[in-house]
Amino acid sequence: MNQVTVQAPATVANLVCGFDILGLALDEPYDIMELRLLDEPRVIITSKDGFALPSDPALNTAGAPLLAMLEELALTATSDRAGALLQPPGRTGALPLPPGRIGFEVSISKQIKPGSGIGSSAASAAGAVVAANHLLGNIWAKEDLVRFAMFGEKVASGVKHADNVAPGIYGGITLIRSIFPLDIITIPAPTLHVTVVHPQIEVRTADARQILRKQVLLKDAIRQWGNIAGLVAGFIKQDYDLIGRSLEDVIIEPVRSMLIPGFDEVKQQCKAAGALGGGISGSGPSIFMLSRDAAIARNVEKVMQDIYNRIGLDYHTYVTTVNQQGVKII
Amino acid sequence: MNQVTVQAPATVANLVCGFDILGLALDEPYDIMELRLLDEPRVIITSKDGFALPSDPALNTAGAPLLAMLEELALTATSDRAGALLQPPGRTGALPLPPGRIGFEVSISKQIKPGSGIGSSAASAAGAVVAANHLLGNIWAKEDLVRFAMFGEKVASGVKHADNVAPGIYGGITLIRSIFPLDIITIPAPTLHVTVVHPQIEVRTADARQILRKQVLLKDAIRQWGNIAGLVAGFIKQDYDLIGRSLEDVIIEPVRSMLIPGFDEVKQQCKAAGALGGGISGSGPSIFMLSRDAAIARNVEKVMQDIYNRIGLDYHTYVTTVNQQGVKII
Repeated sequence: MNQVTVQAPATVANLVCGFDILGLALDEPYDIMELRLLDEPRVIITSKDGFALPSDPALNTAGAPLLAMLEELALTATSDRAGALLQPPGRTGALPLPPGRIGFEVSISKQIKPGSGIGSSAASAAGAVVAANHLLGNIWAKEDLVRFAMFGEKVASGVKHADNVAPGIYGGITLIRSIFPLDIITIPAPTLHVTVVHPQIEVRTADARQILRKQVLLKDAIRQWGNIAGLVAGFIKQDYDLIGRSLEDVIIEPVRSMLIPGFDEVKQQCKAAGALGGGISGSGPSIFMLSRDAAIARNVEKVMQDIYNRIGLDYHTYVTTVNQQGVKII
Repeated sequence: MNQVTVQAPATVANLVCGFDILGLALDEPYDIMELRLLDEPRVIITSKDGFALPSDPALNTAGAPLLAMLEELALTATSDRAGALLQPPGRTGALPLPPGRIGFEVSISKQIKPGSGIGSSAASAAGAVVAANHLLGNIWAKEDLVRFAMFGEKVASGVKHADNVAPGIYGGITLIRSIFPLDIITIPAPTLHVTVVHPQIEVRTADARQILRKQVLLKDAIRQWGNIAGLVAGFIKQDYDLIGRSLEDVIIEPVRSMLIPGFDEVKQQCKAAGALGGGISGSGPSIFMLSRDAAIARNVEKVMQDIYNRIGLDYHTYVTTVNQQGVKII
């Protein structure tokens, strides 16, 4: 086996009160990526979509994680850890090629629009590392894959963060308790239906970061950590009402939502239509809403469509569910 | 039945990263309180311990909640809600006396030293409202009792807060997601052994509040809410390692711990002795540590004793477990 095709899902980071620490994977949309094993240590990126993304692997969000992988492979092969890494428990064969001669050719059909706020860069990174690991006989654990994938996020935004790549790789809802050292916790949850609207405007991640205040009031921080505690408890205890009450963000949303036309109206009317709650997806401009059943999620989509039709902004909507698997090998 | 005796437990508020939102009840120590029904609308406080606490019920942390109860009873009796409140579902009899003629005599044997940081004022408040509700035929829900008990906390500290009275009334570990409106969530957890040391110094709650900064760095707040999310997930998922990793406070503890001699040493050596982690109980000066078994909890006590013996400060220690019931009617 020297070739594999994967579906790399869109993801929603931040989850309202969970800024920088919570994310979830979506069943749709997803990118399709093909990886082929090369017998020389290089990474080739080709694109089958209309997006003008960099083909230089060091500048591409799929390429940078693969380069980091190859570097670690080469280093490990000459170190004491080589045996443990290259013949992990449960693996029967050796690596398909000597570590210094492994490379990848990647072909990307991106369906997740860059800049949409639903983890387009993370999907490339997560898809690439899961596919590459598969071709190498799954020598790395998921946590290692997140570590590699964050090199892609650094290319995309200048900062290593894991709240999109972690749910992309693990599936479901993930908590990033800490980045250094990396500490990822999967959060079980009841069935959740997700409605996303992507108004076709550009919100630069840099702008969305710059607008945040460096300091926050202690009383606001306390309210926020009450909500994040309630949200995590609501997910694990399968308490929809508690999830809904806890989906409140008094710190980031009041500032960032100003960059998204129609935000307040969308939020208010979607909740009136029965959504549990929701907010800005990642750093926007997409807005997501969680609902407890599919019928409500479709009503919520209708509400979003009506608002952006009236405002006169182009948009895409998705009605989907939480992806429990993460990147899927097909 | 016109008399009842209760045990009102000590409580640990804040729980390291859960400042103002998390608390737990202890099996020991506890106050013993006797309540007797009076046939006139007044509250009498008598004390059977050596502490010079106010006997004026409006200034006493057991008295103020009872006065609030009597006021609500009198108001409700003349309102449309009278029927619902005074004949709630599942109750067979009527109130023992007409609402305008109900009063209480309270006798308190306080074992929890005032100013220790393990919820002495809250124990009086929680014990009083649970006992009074029992004498009235349990006409109020636990959430109502917390609402009344917070009048006691206001007397004690000037501020209504629920992170001691809620675990005192509900038992176990409680999350106060919000005070206005009151939103209390019980957090299930694995067996936890608690070691407490109370160095015999005075830390005034007002000083402990004053020393806090009004603003915090966003990056610290993010780290804190990662930890609180991890702690709640660790409790509910019964993951001791995650509980231990999440017991980190980068905001309150670095400031407040300066008021407690020996704090850093106690924390470091108790963790070295096997404690999962811990920190300041309430606003101090008590320090608590959580452990996964009784033997470790006893070793932790020994560590605390050695440190304060060497420093030369008097202290009390307690080795106990989480009280699952809250105030207990005996």
